[in-house]
Order: sequence, then C-alpha cells, then structure tokens
Amino acid sequence: MQTPAPCGGLKKSPSQPNSPRKTPLPGSGIAPACFVPVKAQIMSTTFSDDVRQKLNFIFGRRSIRVYRPGPIPEEWVRILLEAAMAAPSAAAKDPWRFVVIRRPSTLHAVAEALPHGGFLREAVLGIVVCGDLEAAHDRQLSYLLQDCAAAAENLLLAAHILGLGACWLGIHPREDRIRRISALLELPRTVLPVAAVAVGWPGEDKPPRTRFEAAYVHFEKW
Amino acid sequence: MQTPAPCGGLKKSPSQPNSPRKTPLPGSGIAPACFVPVKAQIMSTTFSDDVRQKLNFIFGRRSIRVYRPGPIPEEWVRILLEAAMAAPSAAAKDPWRFVVIRRPSTLHAVAEALPHGGFLREAVLGIVVCGDLEAAHDRQLSYLLQDCAAAAENLLLAAHILGLGACWLGIHPREDRIRRISALLELPRTVLPVAAVAVGWPGEDKPPRTRFEAAYVHFEKW
Repeated sequence: MQTPAPCGGLKKSPSQPNSPRKTPLPGSGIAPACFVPVKAQIMSTTFSDDVRQKLNFIFGRRSIRVYRPGPIPEEWVRILLEAAMAAPSAAAKDPWRFVVIRRPSTLHAVAEALPHGGFLREAVLGIVVCGDLEAAHDRQLSYLLQDCAAAAENLLLAAHILGLGACWLGIHPREDRIRRISALLELPRTVLPVAAVAVGWPGEDKPPRTRFEAAYVHFEKW
Repeated sequence: MQTPAPCGGLKKSPSQPNSPRKTPLPGSGIAPACFVPVKAQIMSTTFSDDVRQKLNFIFGRRSIRVYRPGPIPEEWVRILLEAAMAAPSAAAKDPWRFVVIRRPSTLHAVAEALPHGGFLREAVLGIVVCGDLEAAHDRQLSYLLQDCAAAAENLLLAAHILGLGACWLGIHPREDRIRRISALLELPRTVLPVAAVAVGWPGEDKPPRTRFEAAYVHFEKW
C-alpha cells in the first residue's frame, strides 16, 4: 500500500473511513484491487493471502451494467448454472428453473419488459431465474423466493469469478413484470419469474466493497 | 487423478456420471478435494487453476451440521457480517438485520424453537438473519425475503472460505417459528426472522457438489 486513491461505490459508515487505498492483489487477475482499510487491516493480521483473495471475490462482486462485446463459451454458461444449483434450498426441493437467453431479439424483449433493464440489450446473455411453486417446499412462495435468491447470488458470484460482469434485475413481486415475462417466455402457470440476471464482459470497473452497517447488528437479542 | 474413489453427497443426473474422482487441489487447504468428472474435465481444459479453485469453493459450501469445539475470533464474525452485507439488495435498501448469538443458553433456546435445529446447540455461533419490512424496497415482503436470502448465502460462503462449517435453518414462513424466535430475541414488530445460520468448526467432511439438473434449464423460452 503506497498511495491512497479515491475508490467509488463505498457506502460510508462509522466503521469505513473515507479514503480506501488501491492495493494490488498478488496472483489475482480477476477482482479489481481496492480495499477498505479497516478490512485490509483485519485481514492482513488474521488471514492468509489465499483466504484474503477468496474473501475479496465476495466483496468484488458488483452490479455491472456496462458490457463489452465478446462471446461467452457455452461451457461457461453451464458452470454458471451449476453454481446456481449448488445453493442450498428448503428441504432440498430445488424449485429453481432457468431460462437462458442469448438471442438479441429476446434480450431486447426482456429488457423492454423490465424498467431500468435497458442495459440487458448490451448483455451477451440473460438468465431468468424462475421458481416452480409446485416444486417448492410445502408449495410456499417464501421458500421459492429464498431458494431462487440464493441461487441467483451464487450465479452472480460465479460470473464474477469467471471475470464476467453481471447484474440482478428484479421481477417478482411486480405484477406487470411477472405477466409480461411469463407471456414472453411462455412459462407454465405454476412457474414464477423471480429475477433476470444480465451477463457480459465487464465494461465498467467497480472496486470491492461491503455495505456493512454496525447498526444492523445486534448481539444475543435486539 | 489416479484412483477413482467413492464420493458421497452427489445427486445423480444424466450429466453427472456415478464415479467421481478424488483430486488433490494444489494450494488450497480449505475445500475438500472431490470433483464430478464432467466438471473437472470442463474446468481443466478451460479454466486456470486459480479460477478452478475459486469456483470450487462455491461447490464446496455444504450444509455442515456437526461441529468441533473451538472459539471463533471476534473479527471473523465481523467478516461474516461484512460478506452478508456485500450482497445486492432491491433498490439497495439493505433491509437485512442480524442477531449474533454466542451465549450457549440462547443457542439452546433458538435450537428449541426450530425443528431439526438441534445441532445449533453444538455450534459456536448462531446468526439470525432478519429483515425489516419498513426498510424493504416498497415495503414488499418478496424483496425482504430475496435480499435476506442473498445475504445468508454470502454468509454461508464466507464461513466456508474461512474454513468454518455452517448450515441454514429455515424460519420464515413458519408462523410458530417466527413467533417463538421473535419473542426470544425481542424483535421489533416490523422485523421478521427469515433464517438462522449455525456456525462452528466443521466436524464432518462433505465433498463439493452441484445439484445441477439439465431438465431445469430452458433456452430462449420454456
């Protein structure tokens, strides 16, 4: 660590000073190199470089909405889906279902159905994460949503590990979005679209960060 | 790869042959070394060792319900919470709240309130992931659940990276569990307990795996 440098995207909190530093990460070509000092401090005294790097890729996963053109290998799509389906699910019911979209006309149509989803037009790939209510534990919407969200987070993290950029676009619970996406993708009646994930080669660079807030943490009881 | 060895915990699917192999992972002391051959094949031809190892920690996160005794440093708890709060949330509202439980009497009481939660008694740490409905985007329960689930998944992955074992215990939408946990932790009226995460030193070893099912994947439309 030599020169403090500005580093955007950090939510300020009492525990996060204002001037994080640029720090090169040895051996990692993937995660952008920017640490919040307090975390770097903790990690440097407590964790090995290996663990520090792995943790950093959780903090380095950011919402990437600008993409460079370029193909994504077919087998990488498989890896993203394997990662998504490595998430835990309630009673291991795995109610998640996925619609992979590569055709530009379909990507445009999905973008059209989602406010703030314009950047999906530039993505190489869209993956709509759905849940089948008939498959969910006890047919509960709550479990369906939790299971699909855990799968979507795994998918985003895997994309980041592969050096791709991705962004979560909300669908559920907006009735109009659910209706339009369901019609567009011809989803069965019991299958609910929960979120769309846009994936492409990152066209913007965002530093790792946490939005940790000490006020959100309680001990033993509220 | 020399000798094929049995490797439990794999859900069989047409794309996953029955006899995965034990493969030592260079430089990683954390994730158990067991690959599904098809994935190892894909990865060995397409990804660097670095990326392969990082991906493997997503597949290596398993539900660990047996714990060895031993303290978890205070700053590691902070890292787990930083990882949880590095998840995306709808409109960045961050409705997640956390109750960290270390006192054995409280861990016992939480275990008592959760069916199948007995192993929480042996955990070093319990983190109850809650959501504040007043803080959620548009005060929607759906967003609250999705945001809390993404945070919980990050928490589980960070625990795994640190070499800890963890397991997700469902609370929402079970009315009786919500009522008992809310009373026990004295949660405010608008704060819903979503899940409890048990954390400790792993007392069981589970191989990496995905529950990937080709039938759950559709292309362009259903």
